[in-house]
Amino acid sequence: MTTDRPELAGSQQQRDAACRWFGSLRDRIVAAFESIEAADGGPGCDHPPGRFERRQWTRDGGGGGVMAIMRGRVFEKVGVNVSTVWGDFDRKFAAEIPGTASDDAGFWATGISLVAHMRSPHVPGVHMNTRHIATAGKAWFGGGTDLNPPLPRDEDTKDFHAALAACCDRHPCADYAAFSRWADDYFTIPHRGLKRGVGGIFYDDLAADEESMAFTRDVGETFLAIYPHLVRQRMHETWTDAERSRQLQWRGHYAEFNLVYDRGTRFGLMTGANPEAVLMSLPPVATWP
Amino acid sequence: MTTDRPELAGSQQQRDAACRWFGSLRDRIVAAFESIEAADGGPGCDHPPGRFERRQWTRDGGGGGVMAIMRGRVFEKVGVNVSTVWGDFDRKFAAEIPGTASDDAGFWATGISLVAHMRSPHVPGVHMNTRHIATAGKAWFGGGTDLNPPLPRDEDTKDFHAALAACCDRHPCADYAAFSRWADDYFTIPHRGLKRGVGGIFYDDLAADEESMAFTRDVGETFLAIYPHLVRQRMHETWTDAERSRQLQWRGHYAEFNLVYDRGTRFGLMTGANPEAVLMSLPPVATWP
Repeated sequence: MTTDRPELAGSQQQRDAACRWFGSLRDRIVAAFESIEAADGGPGCDHPPGRFERRQWTRDGGGGGVMAIMRGRVFEKVGVNVSTVWGDFDRKFAAEIPGTASDDAGFWATGISLVAHMRSPHVPGVHMNTRHIATAGKAWFGGGTDLNPPLPRDEDTKDFHAALAACCDRHPCADYAAFSRWADDYFTIPHRGLKRGVGGIFYDDLAADEESMAFTRDVGETFLAIYPHLVRQRMHETWTDAERSRQLQWRGHYAEFNLVYDRGTRFGLMTGANPEAVLMSLPPVATWP
Repeated sequence: MTTDRPELAGSQQQRDAACRWFGSLRDRIVAAFESIEAADGGPGCDHPPGRFERRQWTRDGGGGGVMAIMRGRVFEKVGVNVSTVWGDFDRKFAAEIPGTASDDAGFWATGISLVAHMRSPHVPGVHMNTRHIATAGKAWFGGGTDLNPPLPRDEDTKDFHAALAACCDRHPCADYAAFSRWADDYFTIPHRGLKRGVGGIFYDDLAADEESMAFTRDVGETFLAIYPHLVRQRMHETWTDAERSRQLQWRGHYAEFNLVYDRGTRFGLMTGANPEAVLMSLPPVATWP
């Protein structure tokens, strides 16, 4: 699903490599999550283990993607979307995008986006997204991951951040302190004066070179190492009705963040992507009691 | 909760009258809805009847309001918020508001806002809002009401629209055909290509004169006559689990509309109003399965 676009910044070779990487990362994540579902002997063990379903979609105007979604017993709802889209930005939206001249609003974008809502309020939810975008004047990498436990545990928060810090330390283009502050600033719900979770990293506008691509790969590898580990650590704990209620209400706040503030959601809705794919991140059930 | 603001367009007398009207309309709606709760002999009759709870809130920067909220057996969650707020618009937001010069972003606004989410998927939900806003250059009335049945019935849709058409016909400043089209255009969820309900009326920018005030009163009276009638007509019908599931999923779309597109929600979040009051419109439970 890539096309030759010599008029855009960045290289065709890197665009192809990013596309392939996101697809292969998705396949490994799918396998890891399905194996957790299969292994579960905890509170959900009388439900059948979930399996991912994949659905291909195409975008009017260019490109499309594959949504993989699983409704399971540990993963109440998890979506992994890999998409590659191109075309011209809507004129009004183009003004918000770097490197997009008023007379050339062409773009090409590829990325992986993952959101997991867990059945147990003790198992943290998570979001991970990495992307490569090219416009006429500029090509860059961006992304991030943040941990979203309805009932935060210091130990999990510490392990998650330690893994991301180590990842950033392996790459000269990455700065854990800055990317972690960026996540803290970005993943907030200003109208409630709340953070949406316990943070992680967020980065954007990383020049499209080999270094950025290597870092983006490593963010995926790091996610794959740390998140399944955190899930396995908590998935056998039982929970109370009060804890579940707190989780559902917390998910209401999460939905507010995604619909009011999230850049990826806005990008998707404004570029006419499949709403099912864009809004896959919304929780399976949420309350505003 | 009004202050003398001679520098604003419109008259202090009309601002006071609008304030008083919204408060008295709220009291009558509260009484009508509580009497439905008390009378219920339908599927929810083993739950205790709901009563409204009122909570006063103040806004940093000027004004505040009273939220009245009821969690009942017919009304799963209904909120009626009457607020009067004033101050200066945030500079970026001021550019979106009529009559707001860059050197004088003062405003004063009063309104009533109601959203009902019903327990039965056969009883239509509803939204009603009327407001009076004054800025330095302009003062106006706006508002509307729309019916939101998860499982629409032609008869209810017809009765609701007939009542609104009759109301508009009583006032030279109101045009049912135009206001009804406006509601159809406004109450849509573009990213899903769906309407959020079966419409009603929407109006804005009605010059702040006696005619507009009389029409705004009549919208309230008409709501009070037709909506409780529609509820009483449907509240004794039973429903299936499949119908309830459809209702919860439909509410997810409703939440999307309110968080992504609704002007009132945006106005509230951008002017620093109490988030509990602004987001009172969100459904008690919603699903994105």
